Amino acid sequence: MSLRARTQAVLDRPLTRNFILGVILFNAIILGLETVDPVMEAAGPLILTLDMICLWIFVAELAAKLFAQGWGFFRKGWNLFDFVIVGISLLPGSGSLSVLRALRILRLLRVLSVAPSLRRVVEGLVTALPGMASVFLLMALLFYIGAVMSTKLFGAAFPDWFGNLGLSGYTLFQIMTLESWSMGIVRPVMEVYPYAWMFFMPFILVTTFAVVNLLVGLIVNSMQDAHAEESNAATDQYRDDVLARLEAIERALKDRRD
Amino acid sequence: MSLRARTQAVLDRPLTRNFILGVILFNAIILGLETVDPVMEAAGPLILTLDMICLWIFVAELAAKLFAQGWGFFRKGWNLFDFVIVGISLLPGSGSLSVLRALRILRLLRVLSVAPSLRRVVEGLVTALPGMASVFLLMALLFYIGAVMSTKLFGAAFPDWFGNLGLSGYTLFQIMTLESWSMGIVRPVMEVYPYAWMFFMPFILVTTFAVVNLLVGLIVNSMQDAHAEESNAATDQYRDDVLARLEAIERALKDRRD
Amino acid sequence: MSLRARTQAVLDRPLTRNFILGVILFNAIILGLETVDPVMEAAGPLILTLDMICLWIFVAELAAKLFAQGWGFFRKGWNLFDFVIVGISLLPGSGSLSVLRALRILRLLRVLSVAPSLRRVVEGLVTALPGMASVFLLMALLFYIGAVMSTKLFGAAFPDWFGNLGLSGYTLFQIMTLESWSMGIVRPVMEVYPYAWMFFMPFILVTTFAVVNLLVGLIVNSMQDAHAEESNAATDQYRDDVLARLEAIERALKDRRD
Amino acid sequence: MSLRARTQAVLDRPLTRNFILGVILFNAIILGLETVDPVMEAAGPLILTLDMICLWIFVAELAAKLFAQGWGFFRKGWNLFDFVIVGISLLPGSGSLSVLRALRILRLLRVLSVAPSLRRVVEGLVTALPGMASVFLLMALLFYIGAVMSTKLFGAAFPDWFGNLGLSGYTLFQIMTLESWSMGIVRPVMEVYPYAWMFFMPFILVTTFAVVNLLVGLIVNSMQDAHAEESNAATDQYRDDVLARLEAIERALKDRRD
Repeated sequence: MSLRARTQAVLDRPLTRNFILGVILFNAIILGLETVDPVMEAAGPLILTLDMICLWIFVAELAAKLFAQGWGFFRKGWNLFDFVIVGISLLPGSGSLSVLRALRILRLLRVLSVAPSLRRVVEGLVTALPGMASVFLLMALLFYIGAVMSTKLFGAAFPDWFGNLGLSGYTLFQIMTLESWSMGIVRPVMEVYPYAWMFFMPFILVTTFAVVNLLVGLIVNSMQDAHAEESNAATDQYRDDVLARLEAIERALKDRRD
Repeated sequence: MSLRARTQAVLDRPLTRNFILGVILFNAIILGLETVDPVMEAAGPLILTLDMICLWIFVAELAAKLFAQGWGFFRKGWNLFDFVIVGISLLPGSGSLSVLRALRILRLLRVLSVAPSLRRVVEGLVTALPGMASVFLLMALLFYIGAVMSTKLFGAAFPDWFGNLGLSGYTLFQIMTLESWSMGIVRPVMEVYPYAWMFFMPFILVTTFAVVNLLVGLIVNSMQDAHAEESNAATDQYRDDVLARLEAIERALKDRRD
Repeated sequence: MSLRARTQAVLDRPLTRNFILGVILFNAIILGLETVDPVMEAAGPLILTLDMICLWIFVAELAAKLFAQGWGFFRKGWNLFDFVIVGISLLPGSGSLSVLRALRILRLLRVLSVAPSLRRVVEGLVTALPGMASVFLLMALLFYIGAVMSTKLFGAAFPDWFGNLGLSGYTLFQIMTLESWSMGIVRPVMEVYPYAWMFFMPFILVTTFAVVNLLVGLIVNSMQDAHAEESNAATDQYRDDVLARLEAIERALKDRRD
Repeated sequence: MSLRARTQAVLDRPLTRNFILGVILFNAIILGLETVDPVMEAAGPLILTLDMICLWIFVAELAAKLFAQGWGFFRKGWNLFDFVIVGISLLPGSGSLSVLRALRILRLLRVLSVAPSLRRVVEGLVTALPGMASVFLLMALLFYIGAVMSTKLFGAAFPDWFGNLGLSGYTLFQIMTLESWSMGIVRPVMEVYPYAWMFFMPFILVTTFAVVNLLVGLIVNSMQDAHAEESNAATDQYRDDVLARLEAIERALKDRRD
């Protein structure tokens, strides 16, 4: 057995998995404690050291996996997911990039790749996405059209909300979620442009209808999957049975005729 | 092959379709750039010229289609859709009609008629509508009744919200989406008319229930369509098989008797 | 043919139905015009007279139905519905009862009892209700418990929102619809009672879950009804066919043995 | 028949059940009246005495059940439920624990354990939970990650909303329910951190998608349960019938050959 194969075998052991899972959860608690000021004042260096140790364990695990699987490592989605998440943590988080420090908690997402039950949920969600690609595309179209129109129509009078395509897109997203759409946005706009409702009400109706269709699509797909899985077992068995019996009868009849 | 048939053949070529699709997307970017002030300052005339060119390509395509299909052109919904969208762009957008300039981005909607996958999504949505006509009618009734009642009851004290049927209808639509219905509208109204909740809470419950029923109807319809498509292929095959075999056995038994 | 039977026959004629439908719609427009001040100033007496005429047509129709059907009139839900709606319009709407004038537009609801397609939608909604009775009962329990608890806990400090059971119930309904629940209600409450979220967040989760269950119940019921209707026709036919054929084969076998 | 068995028999009698149900409802009214100040001023001692009597009836019932069932009492979930609810009422509700007085209305929840139809609804809801455990776990992960990130990113500038993990979690829950997420929270945050939407919009999309998946899961499960129950009775009967007949024909044919 080669060193590579042996490394893979060690990585596949339940003990290794559970250890990594434990480190992830322990690391999540450590990163949570980093937000508690009294704890950081009392034991800041210890917390940071423990965080470092967890990070190096992840790096070591990834390096071992990389060594064991070679370039094949990059062919699996979950490996790439782990690689990016751990990679983010290795970037220097000082100065203007201090935002990157906040991204370290994303390491907790590694639970998704390690715990099988969560893995399946995420895979279920992800596999449902392509079937909805055309509705997503439709939504993107609607938002782009809406953003261009609202920027042209209301951008001059309401630069904070519709000043450019980005601001308009954000405001339209807010309107699609129905948050303060009327009292917060459309009523003030209507004081300047009384016919603004002719743009916003159709926008709400159409995007809501598209979202509803996404939902309906999801339900129908899940139902069909569930239905296909469930019903086939018993029904296929029964049908095979019937066909076999019919064949036996046919053969019996033929035998006699001969 | 007549000139008409040849024109139709050219229009049906994948190359033509993809070219038109490209022009639509390019035009959408151009129209998006029109909202960016620095770009317009630097290259305004170029942008407007490119927009013009795109528009004339659409006009040429439509004219070709009209020539190829004759009056039959107007019998297809998608052709009318393209005709109206391109027509809007040809209207003069100056003076008080500057709103029409903003409608030009609707040209991007032509993607819906050109890209087959989006076309199917839209057709799916549209064919679902007639089945829900009676629920829509019910909603229209509820809104008309609600608007008349709220105008009569609260119009005098709250002219901004319930001053006439149009304002009442808008406010009731806002209430149906649950946006600021209580803190924004009903609590202030209840300070003047303490029993206003006896109008608004039933209105919310009934319209929400009607919306939920629309949703349920959509789900059930989609599910039935999906179910019908899926199950019939295999099941019909099996059933025909079983019946044919039983018939053969019956006949074989009868033949022998004779 | 008695006078009663002849009256019923006249009432059942499509012409009569359509006439009544027309009067209802005409009356709805009249009642809508009553809210338009310029119209009332110009032609107030005419509008009110036309409204009177419509009302008396309804009264005459109801009287004719009552005469034709006798006491059996009151056994049908839709008749009672019409009776109450027309009755409300006959009450004097002067003085402190001017609210009753606003209720006249409810006459438009008579469309529900006259137009068959809307009638079916409403009947569908109403027949779905009893199956959800226990979830409604559960909701009523949750609201009563929530109202008593919030009145006792927060009533002293926030009399406007939780001053008595009625106010608490209204506020909890607002919270269930998620309208301004946090910025409007719970954050201010939490400034006085920091642990208020321990009451409100479970309330939101539990009531939302109950509403979701209502929705799921509705979907499953509709789906079963649709499924039962659809599948049985073809499947029953096939099954009867198979059983008949099997019987024929069995008989043929028996015949020969004899 | 032992005293224990006889006690159990008395408890199981419909009369006893209905009496307890009556006491629960009567007690709920009493506790509701406690919130009405004029009633308490007029008949305060009477109300409190009636409440006491109801409580002691519950204690007596529980004691009888405990005596009848012995330690087996604690093995049933509903018994524990009743035990905890009655136990809360027995705690002294004076001084800083006056909150406990408000919890007394929870006694009304005992209706859930006594009325069979409500019992079934609750059992249905509870049995649906484990199937959704992994989605709940995923939600918990998302909230923990979101709380740590938002505390680190926005805690310094917005201590009221994101000052610590608890406050961030509450604010994120508010954002997930879409209540004032934009006008109330994200727009103010974006004035300080213009890129805050890159955190909040994905958070909204991902949590909404997870909630939608919970809903879809619930619908699919309910549908499968309903489907399984309904279809099996008739179909199984039919299938057994067909198979038995085919077997009989087969045997008949074989018999003759011999």
